[in-house]
Amino acid sequence: MKKIMNDPSNVVSEMVAGLVSAYPTYLTQLPETTAVVRADRASMQGKVGLVSGGGSGHEPAHAGFVGDGMLSAAVCGQVFTSPTPDQIYEAIKASDTGAGVFLIIKNYSGDVMNFEMAKDMAELDDIKVSSIVVDDDIAVENSLYTQGKRGVAGTVLMHKILGAAADQGANLAEIEALAKEVMPHLKTLGVALSAATVPEVGKPGFELADDEIEYGVGIHSEPGYRREKLQPSKELVAEMLTKLDEALQFDATKKYAVLINGMGATPLMEQYIFSNDVFNWLKAKDITPVFSKVGNYMTSLEMAGISLTVLELADEKWLEYLNYQVDTIAW
Amino acid sequence: MKKIMNDPSNVVSEMVAGLVSAYPTYLTQLPETTAVVRADRASMQGKVGLVSGGGSGHEPAHAGFVGDGMLSAAVCGQVFTSPTPDQIYEAIKASDTGAGVFLIIKNYSGDVMNFEMAKDMAELDDIKVSSIVVDDDIAVENSLYTQGKRGVAGTVLMHKILGAAADQGANLAEIEALAKEVMPHLKTLGVALSAATVPEVGKPGFELADDEIEYGVGIHSEPGYRREKLQPSKELVAEMLTKLDEALQFDATKKYAVLINGMGATPLMEQYIFSNDVFNWLKAKDITPVFSKVGNYMTSLEMAGISLTVLELADEKWLEYLNYQVDTIAW
Repeated sequence: MKKIMNDPSNVVSEMVAGLVSAYPTYLTQLPETTAVVRADRASMQGKVGLVSGGGSGHEPAHAGFVGDGMLSAAVCGQVFTSPTPDQIYEAIKASDTGAGVFLIIKNYSGDVMNFEMAKDMAELDDIKVSSIVVDDDIAVENSLYTQGKRGVAGTVLMHKILGAAADQGANLAEIEALAKEVMPHLKTLGVALSAATVPEVGKPGFELADDEIEYGVGIHSEPGYRREKLQPSKELVAEMLTKLDEALQFDATKKYAVLINGMGATPLMEQYIFSNDVFNWLKAKDITPVFSKVGNYMTSLEMAGISLTVLELADEKWLEYLNYQVDTIAW
Repeated sequence: MKKIMNDPSNVVSEMVAGLVSAYPTYLTQLPETTAVVRADRASMQGKVGLVSGGGSGHEPAHAGFVGDGMLSAAVCGQVFTSPTPDQIYEAIKASDTGAGVFLIIKNYSGDVMNFEMAKDMAELDDIKVSSIVVDDDIAVENSLYTQGKRGVAGTVLMHKILGAAADQGANLAEIEALAKEVMPHLKTLGVALSAATVPEVGKPGFELADDEIEYGVGIHSEPGYRREKLQPSKELVAEMLTKLDEALQFDATKKYAVLINGMGATPLMEQYIFSNDVFNWLKAKDITPVFSKVGNYMTSLEMAGISLTVLELADEKWLEYLNYQVDTIAW
């Protein structure tokens, strides 16, 4: 294991301290926690608070999306480990200004359980809380750590859309309805060229040969659906978009957003080449995405790989929300 | 070599095509080139144009910094290879709206020569052109490809400061004077944990043992000044800041900006841990940077490593320029 760090058991606390030191105008750390909340809490007044989080190792998710027009707070669990309910509860309390709090939870059993417990704790305080479980990954059903499908990079688009709606004054019921409308139209598929190493474990989560790739891998090194020799970018894109097409039924009369997401160690050059193949494949179907973003948004430590998220914009307003001006570290 | 790509000889053209497809509202590709210019050229009217660029492989630099309030155009050479004068010339022409064009050149012999030739070509067209050569890397003198010191991540802060000044209406002579004032206060030092592989070469630029780190490495795998066993983040920071202190003579009565830059494959978690150690080291000297940013800004393909840039804010206006609102893909 070759990492820039100090004691492997302190990586999350040191990471949060470094993040807050570097971005004091964006983030404030909640006392006795590794949760961060917007530094300008005054401007959240009267709006529904949005809280997300989960295990660390997916940076910039989720703390990088805390800010004006996006999340109110993010809870940073230990690496690839759900944050504890009390930490989530503190983030909920810090995000409530009377309009209630909405939780955006990636679909991992630990996260779902702990966020739900925190919700119960907050409701005892008369804070109104509702939530969505994001399960955008189409790779496999019932993976390691998951009942159903995993929540991956599409979660960032969920943050963005709900964040814009909350900033524009949507109430808690409206946010919940919006999240439920968006969810079935949001699909992701990823591939890995190498695995991540959890600092406290010290060795990679899986091994791939020098010429091998894994399709459908999760963001915690969970197995995908096939291993084979690395294909050219065009072939990867064709396989991934064919599966996303099966899930979403692409239609040239509809509008789409795409998020091309680097897993951590994959350089932007490769992501842009992949992006070129995505646009070419879609163009052959008479589809030009109306919104796109390419970069590292939901990573898996130093895993090399890429994921492709497609969101069918079933409502014109969702595009406005995606384009809505925000001020965060990482959007 | 394990990369998401198609033909290794087409990586730059496919990268630029992917970038422009994904960000059509930001970037337009100049015909017959791999140079990109702001898509909203109308809003550049009357302002000094800023052009940068160099070999590809440093993404998001420089195309990611093209946009309102920052660069007008970026020229993307082949991987780690200077762009040709004719491509730079096209970028200069596209960036001139009558107020002249300023070139931000990283100090590599090929870049300096080719940007100067392009400047001569543009001057024959009666376009006023001036330039700065950025040589912020304090690691070594006269490296591979360089006479003097190398230009590295500090170049991004130069883009930002000059971009804000140009957007606020500074004329060409004022931009040149500002660049010359900033340059001696801008210093960077980097370390590598692994090397980059140029696609057309197919093997890493150097080899490090599993527990080895190289201090002072360049962004094209140029040698640094020492190899040794990887140290904890705190020790790396102490060595790097001690050298930066020697170069800048830190003074608690002065103000500083810091840029912590990932080299490509180093996850944000490690960058934030490193950031925490940077802030702690400086705090012990009674210095709290007034501006900071952490992330992948000037990379070296999939090299693992980090660089630390410190800018002494000798003029209060530079901080305003750093904080000035911009709209780019990657700032």
